[in-house]
Amino acid sequence: MNLDTYLVAFEAIGVLAFALSGIIEAARKNFDLVGVVMVGAIAAFGGGTLRDVLLDRRPFFWVEQEYWVWILIAAGLALPFFFRARHIEFTERAMLIPDAFGLGIFAAGGTHIALQVGQSPLIAVLMGVITAVVGGVLRDVLVNEVPRAFHDHQPYAVVAFLGGWLVVLLSYLRTPEYVDVLVAAIAVVVIRLLAVKFRWELTRWRLL
Amino acid sequence: MNLDTYLVAFEAIGVLAFALSGIIEAARKNFDLVGVVMVGAIAAFGGGTLRDVLLDRRPFFWVEQEYWVWILIAAGLALPFFFRARHIEFTERAMLIPDAFGLGIFAAGGTHIALQVGQSPLIAVLMGVITAVVGGVLRDVLVNEVPRAFHDHQPYAVVAFLGGWLVVLLSYLRTPEYVDVLVAAIAVVVIRLLAVKFRWELTRWRLL
Amino acid sequence: MNLDTYLVAFEAIGVLAFALSGIIEAARKNFDLVGVVMVGAIAAFGGGTLRDVLLDRRPFFWVEQEYWVWILIAAGLALPFFFRARHIEFTERAMLIPDAFGLGIFAAGGTHIALQVGQSPLIAVLMGVITAVVGGVLRDVLVNEVPRAFHDHQPYAVVAFLGGWLVVLLSYLRTPEYVDVLVAAIAVVVIRLLAVKFRWELTRWRLL
Repeated sequence: MNLDTYLVAFEAIGVLAFALSGIIEAARKNFDLVGVVMVGAIAAFGGGTLRDVLLDRRPFFWVEQEYWVWILIAAGLALPFFFRARHIEFTERAMLIPDAFGLGIFAAGGTHIALQVGQSPLIAVLMGVITAVVGGVLRDVLVNEVPRAFHDHQPYAVVAFLGGWLVVLLSYLRTPEYVDVLVAAIAVVVIRLLAVKFRWELTRWRLL
Repeated sequence: MNLDTYLVAFEAIGVLAFALSGIIEAARKNFDLVGVVMVGAIAAFGGGTLRDVLLDRRPFFWVEQEYWVWILIAAGLALPFFFRARHIEFTERAMLIPDAFGLGIFAAGGTHIALQVGQSPLIAVLMGVITAVVGGVLRDVLVNEVPRAFHDHQPYAVVAFLGGWLVVLLSYLRTPEYVDVLVAAIAVVVIRLLAVKFRWELTRWRLL
Repeated sequence: MNLDTYLVAFEAIGVLAFALSGIIEAARKNFDLVGVVMVGAIAAFGGGTLRDVLLDRRPFFWVEQEYWVWILIAAGLALPFFFRARHIEFTERAMLIPDAFGLGIFAAGGTHIALQVGQSPLIAVLMGVITAVVGGVLRDVLVNEVPRAFHDHQPYAVVAFLGGWLVVLLSYLRTPEYVDVLVAAIAVVVIRLLAVKFRWELTRWRLL
């Protein structure tokens, strides 16, 4: 098992974590089966797709790696039976762990892709943040909620932002590219999990 | 009157049905005239536009066939007088009939267009679903509602999905392309209308 | 100081006005610091970015003129301290003045850009409206409100629409292009401010 396989598995965790977050949020809102699958798909693929539209990159990764779509459809069909059989109750807090992995992988990967196509460091980091955050924002808009990433006063997009800069810094070193991405992704995951664990808060902002 | 004319008329029903659904939903929410026209336009053109952005197709069909935009502006200006004169009350149920035509036409047409530019069957079917469903989703988000296509437990996107696969299957036969699209569109319309008539429901999904 | 410098300053007012409108709306909704910056950025850049995606123009203006992003990040970091120190209360009415400048600049500029890449007059005017209106619509959707541009019965998108046609008309004359844009932008600003001042209303629309 070589490093590439690890990276694919790593990416899989990100896609599945975000898909799961969409599926759970839609199911909580009593969406129907189609809605649950769609919100899951949009949460998983929305960020990367917007990044690719902005960078004018084609084909999208879910077009290139079509099996993701099949996995998601299968998951959507299987999950209702699964949940009915088990009476599992997902807590929001349990969700935060896979979500942290998604955040790190997508932020580091998105930044890396934007650097590869020749974007400047700042724009590349923004593309990483977009990749990591937009899926969740669309998920929240579709279930008619205020986006959690903008509202919960926890470091989330900020961690993705820092992780993107780490990719940029590492890209100046002689390390192989996949090491840059892997190190930055792990850093984001660790910082995000620490933030969740110790309930770090962004400075309060009061306008009035 | 040849087949092409029929197809244009068929497409017109789709655009107008979706525009009408947007106009009615916005008017119900007490949007102003501009809002009503805009929500109508987004409901009618949103799905096809996103499909074309994803496929990197230009020009958009409303750019190529600019008269659609003029029709919509004229409809937006004329409708208030019309409604005031007549005191028509649109029921949600009456809306479902033109909407079913829009669903069929856009699902079949969107799938066909994606196949033409060389997409794989699965991606082409997804593009058909996006063409048929996204306009309505944007419409519902703009009036600050949960998207009905994801929430009402009726077969809607699922019917578009099946219709897309019918286009794919028919494309393997020797039939002319417009026959494929027409047959699949009619199949979607019929199934959707049956679903509405007999109040078919998707399996209930309960998470908790 | 030449005309170009004036135009850049003019554009700056537009971007900052829309950014400020997003920052204030997000802060009112108790968004966190990240959310406030993001909603500000989306309000300022959303319309122009969608226009460029639709026209398939790259790079985006915030990619080309990267300092905008830095300014916005700096503003986001500085503003909380500023507000805490001063206890400033922004009224919605005070906001309308810079917002009118944003409307005029973005409507005229967006129309001009679309004409330059060879779009027809109608499509160019629509692109101007999209440039001017979409940022505010996204801002309102993200804070889970109905878009004000569609709902407040004041002339807003309509003024942008008229300003776009003025750019088109002027483009047939022998005037230099920047004069066309400047004149149309000023016309939009003046009409919009008059509309606000005298509380002009769009005809009421009643469906039921």
